[in-house]
Amino acid sequence: MSTFRSIEWKKDKLVLLDQRYLPEKTLYLELKTVDEVARAIKEMTVRGAPAIGVAAAYGMVLCVQKLSKNDDLIRELQKADDLLRASRPTAVNLFWALDRMKKIWQGFNGSLEDLKMILEKEATDIEREDVEINKQIAKNGVELVPFGAKIIHHCNTGSLATVDYGTALGVIRYAHEIGKKIHVFLDETRPRLQGARLSAWEMKELGIPHTIIVDGASGLVMKKFKIDLALVGADRIAANGDTANKIGTYNLAIVAKYHNVPLYVVAPTSTIDLKTPAGQDIPIEERSADEIRCVGNSQVAPQESPVFNPAFDVTPAELISGIITEKGIVYPPFKENLRKLFESA
Amino acid sequence: MSTFRSIEWKKDKLVLLDQRYLPEKTLYLELKTVDEVARAIKEMTVRGAPAIGVAAAYGMVLCVQKLSKNDDLIRELQKADDLLRASRPTAVNLFWALDRMKKIWQGFNGSLEDLKMILEKEATDIEREDVEINKQIAKNGVELVPFGAKIIHHCNTGSLATVDYGTALGVIRYAHEIGKKIHVFLDETRPRLQGARLSAWEMKELGIPHTIIVDGASGLVMKKFKIDLALVGADRIAANGDTANKIGTYNLAIVAKYHNVPLYVVAPTSTIDLKTPAGQDIPIEERSADEIRCVGNSQVAPQESPVFNPAFDVTPAELISGIITEKGIVYPPFKENLRKLFESA
Repeated sequence: MSTFRSIEWKKDKLVLLDQRYLPEKTLYLELKTVDEVARAIKEMTVRGAPAIGVAAAYGMVLCVQKLSKNDDLIRELQKADDLLRASRPTAVNLFWALDRMKKIWQGFNGSLEDLKMILEKEATDIEREDVEINKQIAKNGVELVPFGAKIIHHCNTGSLATVDYGTALGVIRYAHEIGKKIHVFLDETRPRLQGARLSAWEMKELGIPHTIIVDGASGLVMKKFKIDLALVGADRIAANGDTANKIGTYNLAIVAKYHNVPLYVVAPTSTIDLKTPAGQDIPIEERSADEIRCVGNSQVAPQESPVFNPAFDVTPAELISGIITEKGIVYPPFKENLRKLFESA
Repeated sequence: MSTFRSIEWKKDKLVLLDQRYLPEKTLYLELKTVDEVARAIKEMTVRGAPAIGVAAAYGMVLCVQKLSKNDDLIRELQKADDLLRASRPTAVNLFWALDRMKKIWQGFNGSLEDLKMILEKEATDIEREDVEINKQIAKNGVELVPFGAKIIHHCNTGSLATVDYGTALGVIRYAHEIGKKIHVFLDETRPRLQGARLSAWEMKELGIPHTIIVDGASGLVMKKFKIDLALVGADRIAANGDTANKIGTYNLAIVAKYHNVPLYVVAPTSTIDLKTPAGQDIPIEERSADEIRCVGNSQVAPQESPVFNPAFDVTPAELISGIITEKGIVYPPFKENLRKLFESA
C-alpha cells in the first residue's frame, strides 16, 4: 500500500487528499454531501478516471444516507445521479460507477435502511476492486517492460488517480518492485502539471528513479536516452481503440511513433466504452482559460489574451501499440479484440 | 515600429526591456558594463538569437569605452569577447556579432578614440540592419501565407527577440498588416513560457488575433482548426538545414509532419552556420532545474525530483519545408541550397 490514501471512506464521510495543493501541501478534505462530491470532481480536488468513479459512487451513498422515509427516494437519487454525471464529461468511469449504483437503486423495493446498506456495500466493492484490478493490470503489463527500461509517462496515473497502486504508474511501480531497474521520464503535463506535481511526488515517495521534463522535450528525450516504451492512462477508450486521455497524449503518441517507441494505454476495462464507436464521439471537456494564464499566483499570460484549453485529446488507435487491462493485453485490430474481451467475460 | 523597444543604445549605456517580468511588469534595465551585458544574456533579461547578438556587440562597445591609453587594449577586449561568448552556447548570432566586432578590433592600429567610434558604429549598424533584414524576411515569407491562414507558432520571435519587427512573428505581423486576416495559435512554450508571456503580449499590443495553447495541444489544434502552416525561429541552422531552436520545436515539427502541415524556419542568414555540418554538432544549453520545478513563487514539483532541462532541441532538416531568410526562401536540398545562398552574396 502507498503511504497515503487519495480517497478514503469513513462511514458517513468521504475523505479526499486535496490534489490541488500537492506537492506544496498535504491537505485532506472531508465531504459529507453529494453536492460537495460533485464540486470536488469538477474542481479536480479528486481526479483520475478510476478515482472519480469511486468518488461518485460514494457521492450516491452520501445522498441516500441523508434520506428519510418521507422523501421521494427515486427523485432524490436521480437528482444526485444527474448532478454527479454533469460534473465532468470525458472520463467514462464516472458514468460506469454511477450505472453500477443506479442498477441497484432504480426499481429497488426493499426498505430504505437496506438500500443504504446495499449502496454502501456496492461503493466499497468498487473501491476494493479498483485496487485488485490495478495490481492485476500491473502483472499483465510488466511483461512488456524490459530490464533496465527507460519509460516515458504522461500526466498522473498512480495511486492519486485511482484508489491505490495506479494504472500506467502501477505497471512502472510493479516493474520497480520486482527489480527491473527502470527509469521513468515524467511529462510535467501542462496546464495542471499533474506529472510534475503528482507523479513526481509519488515516484519520490516510492523511491522510483525518475526525471521530470517539459512536455515539449519528449522527442529529444526519446532520441537522446533511447526510450523503450511510453505508458499512458485513459479517460475513455472507444470501441475502435481511439483513446481520450489528458491533453498532450496525442502529441506524445505521434512523437513516439516517429521514434518507433511503442505506446501502451493502461486502463481497467471500466474505461472501455463499447457504446462510443470512435474517438470523434467522445465529448472533450474544455476548462477555464485561467488554468493556462495563471500558475499559482503568477500571471503568465496577458489576461486579455484568448486561450483554448481542452482538458483531453484523442489518440487514434493507429498510434497505440496495445491496451493493457486487468483481463490481459489487447492488441490491434482493437475493434475486434476489444469486443472479444467483453464477450469472454 | 513597435510601441516598445526591447533594446536601445544610449551613447554610453544599453537599455533593455527586462523580459523576465513581462507581462506582469514592464521594467527597463540600464547596463553600463560588459559584465552586466553578459549577465543579462545568461539570465535571459534579453533573449532571442538576433537580440542577444546585438546586445553582445554593445557589450564590446561598453568595454572599449571604459579603456584608456594605459590599458592593454587587445587583452581587455579579448577578455570581454571571451566573457560574452561564454554567456550562452547555442544561438550562433551571438558569435556572429562578436566576430564582426572582432574583425575590427583585432589588429586595429589607429587611435583608441577612433576604435571607440568605429566599434560603436559597427554595433549600431548591426542593430539597424537587424530591423531592415526582418522587414525583408517578412516580405519574402508572406507569400507562403494564404488569406485567412491559421498559423501555429512556438516560443517568441517578435520584436522582443530581435531589435524590432521579429522573424517568424514578423511574417505574421506583416501578413496581418497587409490584410490577410490571419489567426495565430501560440504555443505557450514551457518552461519559460515565452509564447504566453511575450508573444501573446506582442500580439495583444499589435491587435493581431491570437489564441494561447499549451505545447501538448498542438496536435489537437492542427486537426480541429485545420492549421495551414507552422512558423518558428531558429538559434542555429547547420549547413545541412538541421535547426536548433527553443525546446519543443522538434515535437511541433513531428506533429506538423503527421498532419501534413508545412513547417517553415524563419531567420536571418546570420543564424545559418555553415561551419556546423549537422544538428548533432550544435551545442545544446542545459538550464537550471528550477526553471521547471518553480513557476513564479509556486513550487510545482518536489524539490528533490531530478529534472532534465535542455533549452533547445534540434529539428532535422527532413521535417522542415523551407527556411525563410532576407535573401529569399531556401528549399530542400538544404545542404546545396544554403551553400548557394552564401555564394550568391
